[in-house]
This record gives sequence, C-alpha cells and structure tokens, in this order.
Amino acid sequence: MSALQHFLKQPLSVSVRSTLRGAGQVMFQQSAWTGILFLAGIFWGAYECHTPAVAWGAVVGLVASTVAGMVINENFEQGIDGLWGFNGVLVGCAFPTFMGNCWQMWVALIFCSMLTTWVRHGFNNVMEPWKVNSLTFPFVFCTWMFLLASRYMFDMDGDELSKPVLALADSCRTLDTGFGALVIYWLKGIAQVFLINSWVTGAIFLVALAVCSRAAALYAALGSALSLAIAIAYGADASNIANGLFGFSPVLTAIAIGSTFYSITWKSAVWAVAAIVATVFIQAGMDGMMLPFGIPTLTGPFCVTTWLFLLPRYQMDKRADPDHSSWVKDIEEEENRQ
Amino acid sequence: MSALQHFLKQPLSVSVRSTLRGAGQVMFQQSAWTGILFLAGIFWGAYECHTPAVAWGAVVGLVASTVAGMVINENFEQGIDGLWGFNGVLVGCAFPTFMGNCWQMWVALIFCSMLTTWVRHGFNNVMEPWKVNSLTFPFVFCTWMFLLASRYMFDMDGDELSKPVLALADSCRTLDTGFGALVIYWLKGIAQVFLINSWVTGAIFLVALAVCSRAAALYAALGSALSLAIAIAYGADASNIANGLFGFSPVLTAIAIGSTFYSITWKSAVWAVAAIVATVFIQAGMDGMMLPFGIPTLTGPFCVTTWLFLLPRYQMDKRADPDHSSWVKDIEEEENRQ
Amino acid sequence: MSALQHFLKQPLSVSVRSTLRGAGQVMFQQSAWTGILFLAGIFWGAYECHTPAVAWGAVVGLVASTVAGMVINENFEQGIDGLWGFNGVLVGCAFPTFMGNCWQMWVALIFCSMLTTWVRHGFNNVMEPWKVNSLTFPFVFCTWMFLLASRYMFDMDGDELSKPVLALADSCRTLDTGFGALVIYWLKGIAQVFLINSWVTGAIFLVALAVCSRAAALYAALGSALSLAIAIAYGADASNIANGLFGFSPVLTAIAIGSTFYSITWKSAVWAVAAIVATVFIQAGMDGMMLPFGIPTLTGPFCVTTWLFLLPRYQMDKRADPDHSSWVKDIEEEENRQ
Repeated sequence: MSALQHFLKQPLSVSVRSTLRGAGQVMFQQSAWTGILFLAGIFWGAYECHTPAVAWGAVVGLVASTVAGMVINENFEQGIDGLWGFNGVLVGCAFPTFMGNCWQMWVALIFCSMLTTWVRHGFNNVMEPWKVNSLTFPFVFCTWMFLLASRYMFDMDGDELSKPVLALADSCRTLDTGFGALVIYWLKGIAQVFLINSWVTGAIFLVALAVCSRAAALYAALGSALSLAIAIAYGADASNIANGLFGFSPVLTAIAIGSTFYSITWKSAVWAVAAIVATVFIQAGMDGMMLPFGIPTLTGPFCVTTWLFLLPRYQMDKRADPDHSSWVKDIEEEENRQ
Repeated sequence: MSALQHFLKQPLSVSVRSTLRGAGQVMFQQSAWTGILFLAGIFWGAYECHTPAVAWGAVVGLVASTVAGMVINENFEQGIDGLWGFNGVLVGCAFPTFMGNCWQMWVALIFCSMLTTWVRHGFNNVMEPWKVNSLTFPFVFCTWMFLLASRYMFDMDGDELSKPVLALADSCRTLDTGFGALVIYWLKGIAQVFLINSWVTGAIFLVALAVCSRAAALYAALGSALSLAIAIAYGADASNIANGLFGFSPVLTAIAIGSTFYSITWKSAVWAVAAIVATVFIQAGMDGMMLPFGIPTLTGPFCVTTWLFLLPRYQMDKRADPDHSSWVKDIEEEENRQ
Repeated sequence: MSALQHFLKQPLSVSVRSTLRGAGQVMFQQSAWTGILFLAGIFWGAYECHTPAVAWGAVVGLVASTVAGMVINENFEQGIDGLWGFNGVLVGCAFPTFMGNCWQMWVALIFCSMLTTWVRHGFNNVMEPWKVNSLTFPFVFCTWMFLLASRYMFDMDGDELSKPVLALADSCRTLDTGFGALVIYWLKGIAQVFLINSWVTGAIFLVALAVCSRAAALYAALGSALSLAIAIAYGADASNIANGLFGFSPVLTAIAIGSTFYSITWKSAVWAVAAIVATVFIQAGMDGMMLPFGIPTLTGPFCVTTWLFLLPRYQMDKRADPDHSSWVKDIEEEENRQ
C-alpha cells in the first residue's frame, strides 16, 4: 500500500494540505487556503440554515474519499494535488441535505465517498481517449444512485427530496426582481455549488476563489450573473431562481471553460459565454428530466455542458503555464502517455 | 476563421448549394436538388397543417447551423458536403412544432441549431474509435434538452408537447385499415422524418430521394411499409400509426443500412430488413420510455438501431464507390487516419 | 457462413454441448453440466410457479441466440465456449415472465434473442478499449426496449409488469425474519438470476455452480447473504426482500469480481465484498429509477457495478489459469490483439 506509506512518510501537514486541496478542487483550485475558505463558507451556511450535519458531512466525505485514495494506492501525485477529495466533499454535502440524519445515512455517506475515488479512476480511464476528465460526475452518478435507493430503503429516508411529479405547476412565478434581491440570488448561485443556500457563503466562496485565481472568481461571478439573466428572460421557475439553483452549474462551466482548460484569451471568453448559455438550458432540461424521479440534478448539467464544449477539441492556445491547475496537467500527462 | 473565408472566396452559389445539401443529408443525400425538394415538401406540409412557423424554422435552423460551421471554422470539406446543416434543419422543424411561437423560442432555436454543429463534432470524436457516426443524434440530444427545459421555463412554453403520463390508455385502437388509409399512413411515415404530418409531403420526399438515389427511395418506401405492417400486427397505438409515427425512424434506418453504409447486395438487404424490424420495437420502446417525460423520441430510435447494426462491423462488401455518399467517405477517412 | 459449416462438420454433441454451455455462462461457468442443472432448476421453478412458458422460453431463447451466432458467422471459438447463448436464455426467461403468452410475444422472443448475439458483438467492440466485457447488458438493454414497447403495442401485452408509479407506498415493511424465512430469501436471491421465484431452484443453482467451481458457489452464497443483511439493515421494501430481488445482482457481481476476473486472493475477496455492498445500493437506486417506467432492472445493477469495479484496472494477480473461464481468455486475447 505505497500511497498510504508515501503519505505516512511525509509530515502530517502534507496530508492535511492535500486533503484541504480536495475541497478547493471542486472549483478547480489546487489551493489549501481556498479549501479552508470553502469549508468556512460551508460551515457558515450550514449553521445559518440549521443543518449542521451538512457541514460535518462535508468534512467526513472529504476525509473518507482522501483516505480511500491512500488505502487503495491511487496515483500519489494526484493525491498531493487534492484530486481524491473533491467528489467526496460533495457527497458529504449532498447526503445530509436530502436524507435523514440516521446511522444508515452516515454509513452510506462514508461508503459512497470512498466509492467516488475509484469510480473517478474508472471514469477517467473511460474518457482518456477523448482527452476529457470525469469532472464531478463520479459524485453525481453515485449520489443519484443512493438518493434513488432511498425510495426503496425506507430507513435511509429521503424525506428532504422533492416529491416525484409529472409536471411543475405553472403558478409560482412571482419573483422579487429588486436590485438587492437579484444580488442575493446571484450570490446564492455561487454558494449552491456546495448545495448551500446562503448569500454570505456565496460571498465567502468568491473571496476563496480570488485568493487562488482572480480569473476564476471573475468567471464564477459572470457565470452566476448571466445565468440569472437568462433564467428571468425565459420566465423560469421563480423558486429555483431565488434559491440560486440556476446558477451553480454555469458557475462551474464558466471556471472550467474560461480559466481552466483553455488559456485566458478573448476567444476562450466567447467560448465560455456560449458554454454558460448552453448550461442554463441544459440545467433546465435536466431539471425537467428529473421531475418524475424527484431527485436533484446535482452538478450534472455542468459536467454534460463542459464535455460538449471540450469534445470538439478546438485549439485556443492551451494554457502554457500548467502550475495554476493540475487538471490541465492531467490532460497533458495523458497526452504524453499515448 | 478560415472556413468562413474559404466560403467567402467562393461564388455565392457554392454557399447556397452547400446549405441546401444540408437538408438533403437528413436522409443521407448529398444533393442540393434533393434538399430543395425536401424544403418544398416541408413548406407544403407546414402550410397545409397551418403551422407555417415550422417551415420558416427549418430554413432558419438550416442557415444558422451552416453559418456556425463557417464561423467556428469546422472542416471545410464537410461544409461543402452539407454535413453542418442536417441537424440544424431538424431543430428548426422541431422547435415550432412543440413550442409556442414567441421570441424566446426563436432565440433558442437559433442557439440550439448552432450548438448542434459543434456537438456533432464532439460526438463524432467520441464515436471515431468504433467507426460510426453521430448520425442525427446531436439534433436529438440538444432538442430533448430544450423541450424538457420548457417545463421549467414557462415563457418558452411547450404547450404542444404531450402531457407526461405514466401509462397510455388502452382504448384508442380503432384504426381504419382500408387500402387508401394504409397508403396515407405509409406516406406520412416518410413525411414524419421532418416532423410533417402530410401524405403529400411524403410523396414529395420520395421523389426528392429518387432524384439522387433510386435505391434510397426504394428503401424509404420499404422501411415505412414494413414498419406499418409490424405495428398493425402487434396492435400498436392507432393514433401513432395513423400519423406515421412508427414509420420515420425505420425509413432512416432502411436508407442507412440498405443503401448508405453498405453496398447494395442481397446480404445487406437482409441486414436492412432485420434493422427495420428492430427499429419498430425500439421505436415503441423509446415511446414507452418517454411517457413520464411527455417528449417525443425524435429520430432517437433510428440512431440507436443503426448503431446496433453497424457496431459489429460485419463485412458486407463495403460500397466501393464513395461518390454517392459523403458519410461513407467520412468513415473511410477516419479509417485511413488511424 | 463458415461458423455454421464449422458446427455442421462437428458431431452433433459439440453443438449441443456449446448450446448448454450458454446457460452455464450466465453465471460465468463454461460447463455443459452446469448448464443442464441450471435448466433443470429453471424447469422446476417455472412449473412450481405455474408458468411453464418461462422454462420453454428459456430453451427457445438459448437455441435461437446460439443459432444466430452460427448463421451470421460469429467467432467460432466463442461459440464453442457458449458465449452466444447466455443473453438469449435470459431473454427467454424474461419475456414470458412479464408478457402475455401470445404469438406476438413468441415471435418477439425469438427475434430479441437473436438480436442479443450481434448486439453483444457490437457492445464488446465498444468496450474493448477499456478491457471490459458487455456482460449480460445486451440482454438487459434489448429486453428493456421490448418491455417498454409493450406499453405501445397492446397485443404484446405486458400485463405482468409492475404498474408505473411515482413513489412506493411506505407501508409493506412487515418481514418475517425467522431463520427459516431468511434461508428461503437467501436461496431465492440466487434463483432470481434466472428470474425464478423458488428456493428449491436456488439450491439447485448452488449445486450447479459447485459442479464447475466451488469458489463460484461460495461467492454466490456470500453475495446473496450479504445483500440480504444490508437490505434488512436499511429497511428495504419487504416484498422485494422476500422474493429475492435484492440478491440476484450481488450474486453475479460476487462471482464476477471474486472468482472470474481476478484470481482468488484475500485482496480480491475484499474487493468483491466492496462490490457486493455497492451492488445492493445500485440495485435499490435502479429500482427507484424504474418506478415511473414500471419495468424491472433485470441484471442491470450487476453490469453497472461490475464495470465500476473493473474499470480502474487495479492489478490483483490476474488469474494465471485461464481454463476456468473463457471470460478471462476473452480479456487476455483482447490485450494481445492490441
């Protein structure tokens, strides 16, 4: 078990730093400071919403998935970069948000977080020929399965899930569009990346991004703002808009396309705007698809749209300096390997 | 932006011809004349059904997707062959058929048509290792997303979509099976490739095919007839039969397997018949899958079945003369590239 | 048609043995004796449940898919190993279980069984780059399509399918957990691999496995027992537990991971246990996903989980002796080919 031994040989601070980077990697930032600030935002929002289990779930999921990477001897370099933990921390946020606070949920949370570590490895193997990553899809896929499972496993109750319905009532369209309200929706769009419904958390996340990359913070802000405008123009469901549920996937797409997988140029900026627009419709489409199941899309729309905008492999001056993001390194390593 | 420049250097007629070929390529015919006749059939049917927006949508979608290919500098050869436009023209038929005639729909139609151009490029990259094409799946996938999105975006209303239900009423089974009625169902099956519910359009489409390839016209006729017979033998939903909704996917499968991807032999004819039979059941199966979502299968059953019959890569004397179909050229180029 | 000629040149006993091996290969056993005992178990259970059509369907499906392999000239070696028939025999069990006993069903059964033979070839081509097999997914995919089709084709009535619903009633949780009852659920979990609801059949299947591989029998027993324990601990639907519906997929995963694709070591045993646990949740998740469609998961959860546990390609001393399983040979041959 050499990945575990590797980490045991390092000072404890290395393991801690790598684990914290896992939280940062949710938004593609390989920075322990960003990770700490993300966790701070999660704790603020979870306690504000009286759901402390969400915050502690995030910590448990982050640690479980990182430890899984050590124990099953995943690639050590990826562990140092925090690439084991970002799916686990999201599992940890999602389970207590949608399911009851019982021992069955916690055991499932730990197992599912660990599962994402090798599912990510497998999915990345599948996608390697096309030079794309599995992004947060291991979290999305595994969490969908466990949330759906709660409909058959009554002791892991999914009481906080939406009721499955065939169609949405075309009624609740009253939306406060005052400037202050719009700012709150905009910030909540950013907070919802970690399933947190708090504008303060959104503001903390923006600071956390700026600590590591001002471009990422800017694109996150743009992604949430633009998606808000489109959702309002198309008369989208008011409650989803007000809770930031149209914002979180475009935020991730914007960071991915605008400042992670391509270098920052005017061309990639236009491409990122097109990707943000596409994400809003794919978000609404996947929301519609989930109606009869009553489960959330999670970050699925972000994954799908980002793949659609990476798969054509257009050349836009790939970022020359790979130090800002290990995701780019991943891709380049894969290219060398072949 | 060299693809755009390439086209600007050519006489205007080249751009017009390439755009029209896009309509022809929906049924695998690289011919501007076939494209013009297809558009004529669409206009006839759309005005006959009092939905002129469908015809104009087809033109807008065709142009938008072709221009997208020029602007984002897709492969020039594929542009000349009309391979940018065939997904867009279908998007243009589908949006006004299922959604309301409002500005939000038209903006979405243009954006979605353009989207299919690079989604096609990405999907083709994905499928390259298996020597298959994405066929019309870029249209299918993107349109599904926007139709589902209309359930959350009330101003882009999807009032013409079916109501989502859990099961079909086993009632409306009364079908007029007189010879005249059967001929109408048979021709409507061909017209529905472009979502047009008119037997005159079906007849025009048969002529349009024969202009470019008599084999394609014959296989289209066979595909619609055979699927009609099976649907009746299995007591399928009468309204779907009468509107030609069991016919359009088998028509496309028949042309694809019988006269496009294999040379025309007795062996490939048997294979095409098996593929037509499979398409009917996969059509009914996907119809059943769509019940709780209330969206149409579009040409999804054609795509799925054609992949199933191409993926085993059986050798049946591959068509030696690639001039009749650029799809075959595509595949051969890919083979050479590897 | 050389595969057919090959078989015609052999003594009849070769064709019979290869066909029977097809039944054995459902649980990865390349043994005609195991196949005979599986069929014996199916006949016992089908007659016990007063559904003899299920047993005869199994025979018809097995023969139809094997003959299809001969006629379309599939790889002769795979035919000898029984790899054409295992999807067909499952189609033959599933169709009369869920659909009415009419001529349309029998024609569809034969066509669908044959279909699985080349769909398997195609799916294996797709999965070849990742060194995984399509497992029983050709059966799962094709059967899903035909079962869903029965919702639109009223003469092929799917009266035995569940009613599509949006959510399960949280009522029927009364489960007899006496020792005798638990043993019955445990054995039914093994019998349900072939969709048979009889504990006697489960016992016969265990014997049939032991004839060819004691390890496979042991893992089957473990898979059903462990999944039963988890389902009870999580308060899963009582009727599903009592009918063995949480057991059959983990049984297959356990044999696949524990004794087929890896050599039998402590490491692979731990891995198999993790895979069994994952299968239970993915089974419940896919059950939840199927609620609005009212169709069964079939062995889908086994396929999905086994892929998730094979795709990372961890090295655990691959089985050196390939004689016990042609599946391993398949994989090794594919490796050599590349």
